Amino acid sequence: MLEFTVEDLSAEDIERLRAIYEPLAVSVRALVDATIRTEVDAETVAAVKADIDAATARLRSKQIDGAFGVKRTPSGRSISWGNAVIGLRNPTAPPLVIHRDEDDRRWADFHLGAAYEGPPGHVHGGVSALILDHVLGEAASPDAKPRFTGSITVRYLRACPLGPLHAEAQITRVDGVKTFVSGHISDAEGITVEAEGVFITPRWLRD
Amino acid sequence: MLEFTVEDLSAEDIERLRAIYEPLAVSVRALVDATIRTEVDAETVAAVKADIDAATARLRSKQIDGAFGVKRTPSGRSISWGNAVIGLRNPTAPPLVIHRDEDDRRWADFHLGAAYEGPPGHVHGGVSALILDHVLGEAASPDAKPRFTGSITVRYLRACPLGPLHAEAQITRVDGVKTFVSGHISDAEGITVEAEGVFITPRWLRD
Repeated sequence: MLEFTVEDLSAEDIERLRAIYEPLAVSVRALVDATIRTEVDAETVAAVKADIDAATARLRSKQIDGAFGVKRTPSGRSISWGNAVIGLRNPTAPPLVIHRDEDDRRWADFHLGAAYEGPPGHVHGGVSALILDHVLGEAASPDAKPRFTGSITVRYLRACPLGPLHAEAQITRVDGVKTFVSGHISDAEGITVEAEGVFITPRWLRD
Repeated sequence: MLEFTVEDLSAEDIERLRAIYEPLAVSVRALVDATIRTEVDAETVAAVKADIDAATARLRSKQIDGAFGVKRTPSGRSISWGNAVIGLRNPTAPPLVIHRDEDDRRWADFHLGAAYEGPPGHVHGGVSALILDHVLGEAASPDAKPRFTGSITVRYLRACPLGPLHAEAQITRVDGVKTFVSGHISDAEGITVEAEGVFITPRWLRD
């Protein structure tokens, strides 16, 4: 059973917390990129490492047990700031900001840099799968109730370059507890990766 | 065309570079975790952020253009330190250390923490797909020549908890330029996610 914590946070509380913690994640994202690409000498690396260890210790002086979780407000708003794809407090997330069209199509424009590399200069195929799993999952849940991936098939049409990218997904059909969704990732030249998924309504959300 | 840089690095050079840069990535991985989980006050966060920005600037004072790439030594060794799954210099990679059995089965034991969360306390379904894509891809390339994912289907049997996990994959059949591979992720209770993939030998590696 998954625990979605309900917390009595107002819109102002959420904004206040976001203003405190989001800029830290933005900075750590830049540090992640620099860590992969730096060519500074051993002495500088060791000095930087010591500073980072000190920063980590200060942050850990007061921290939650375990992962961030998913918090819900009484008004039904969902806060997934630790999420691996959209988490604004998670430096490993690009993070995607997912938009919703009138017809419930979901889409995001985003940028993938050095941290997402697989083949040289290109997006790791699994990173494309990660992003498509998330965007398809959001498209599968137009009522803001979570649906979980039953299965997903990802087809790679060509190597996807690092840089600015677009992802989108929409429901193709619903059959009982199963929601079928398809989507893709594209660069300026067109589609690079396509996906189809079957998403399942969890038992505790079925009528 | 993908550029695999050939660099004339000896085993000693590689070890020296690894000893300089790997500990930095280990520290930044811990910082990523602390960034997601910290509850320290706004003042402390701002001070830590300033220290991190300074650290990033020092690392960026000398850095490569673009992503890390994949370097090959004349002896055929491949260095993928920026890779999103196995990159030892990439703080967003767990990183997986992939072992090879006598029968060419590939496997890895690894730990996923707060940075890989999707549903509360559980691995993001897309992260499982990311890891399986990589492990299946390694299994598809027993001769150390890269093969690229044509398609992969991932089936989610149950929610996969954050914590210690195992992944493995092996070739089921080869048909011309197509290599068929299957694999799974498991926790202490058994398999959580299965995958099947078709991997393609790139044109420039075909005989």
